[in-house]
Amino acid sequence: MMHNKSKAIQDLYPDELAHCYGCGKNNLDGYQLKTYLVGDETIAHFLPDEKFTALPGSVYGGLVASLLDCHGTGSAAAFVCVQENINLNEVETIPVRCVTASLKVDFKAPTPMGVELKLRGKLQSIEGRKIWVDMTLSADDTICATGEILAIKIKD
Amino acid sequence: MMHNKSKAIQDLYPDELAHCYGCGKNNLDGYQLKTYLVGDETIAHFLPDEKFTALPGSVYGGLVASLLDCHGTGSAAAFVCVQENINLNEVETIPVRCVTASLKVDFKAPTPMGVELKLRGKLQSIEGRKIWVDMTLSADDTICATGEILAIKIKD
Repeated sequence: MMHNKSKAIQDLYPDELAHCYGCGKNNLDGYQLKTYLVGDETIAHFLPDEKFTALPGSVYGGLVASLLDCHGTGSAAAFVCVQENINLNEVETIPVRCVTASLKVDFKAPTPMGVELKLRGKLQSIEGRKIWVDMTLSADDTICATGEILAIKIKD
Repeated sequence: MMHNKSKAIQDLYPDELAHCYGCGKNNLDGYQLKTYLVGDETIAHFLPDEKFTALPGSVYGGLVASLLDCHGTGSAAAFVCVQENINLNEVETIPVRCVTASLKVDFKAPTPMGVELKLRGKLQSIEGRKIWVDMTLSADDTICATGEILAIKIKD
């Protein structure tokens, strides 16, 4: 995989900001989603446990939204770093942390259980501390959900 | 409380459709959110476990989105029943089940940990099998998030 040598964005969060249930490396109960910057997009993979079901055979929408939320804030932080010429391969902690102001999820097809899900993020725009990211969540080659996040960069 | 005698909407889902991690009575690992129809609105309460943290002291956005998603589909089913003059106190199972087509969450303030959260839902509109519901998620008297769901009634 292209990102073998890179650390995940979330693994670069400083320890005091790494407790998120969705993506914090210090939350041992959580999903520990890992987002990687690959070229000009972000990628994450996740295989849901069977307990996270909706109707039988499909993943519940709350998990889909959760993954898009954490992938979105991680992607936003990464895209700010790209804009500021910060090389994520050369830092121990990422100097940008974002929170979600708004998240929209459109469910396009049932998300099947038992398949590794792939999340992709692309920068839509940056205006000051506001970052908009467009995302997809796919199973095999089917887009199951799209997401749009407005993330806000936390002040230093 | 006004809804003591009523069953939760989710407890009226038929057994084969009651496995949702967010609100299914048959998912013993899940949140088991309970939505009640009270007058012309819907209400649910939820106290998050401390593991569902975001930044320390606050609830992670994925859980907020998950609760709004399940409260939204439950509310949509209830509002369809109201429109169709189905009295939920007189049925063993609810004859309407909805899934999420689209969910938008706006995060207005950090959702504090350790406080019972209150969700409220109001019908925005119904057009055929499409139901739009507006929601709030509050802690004490502060609205932490608003949600808008487009739910789709599953065909019989």
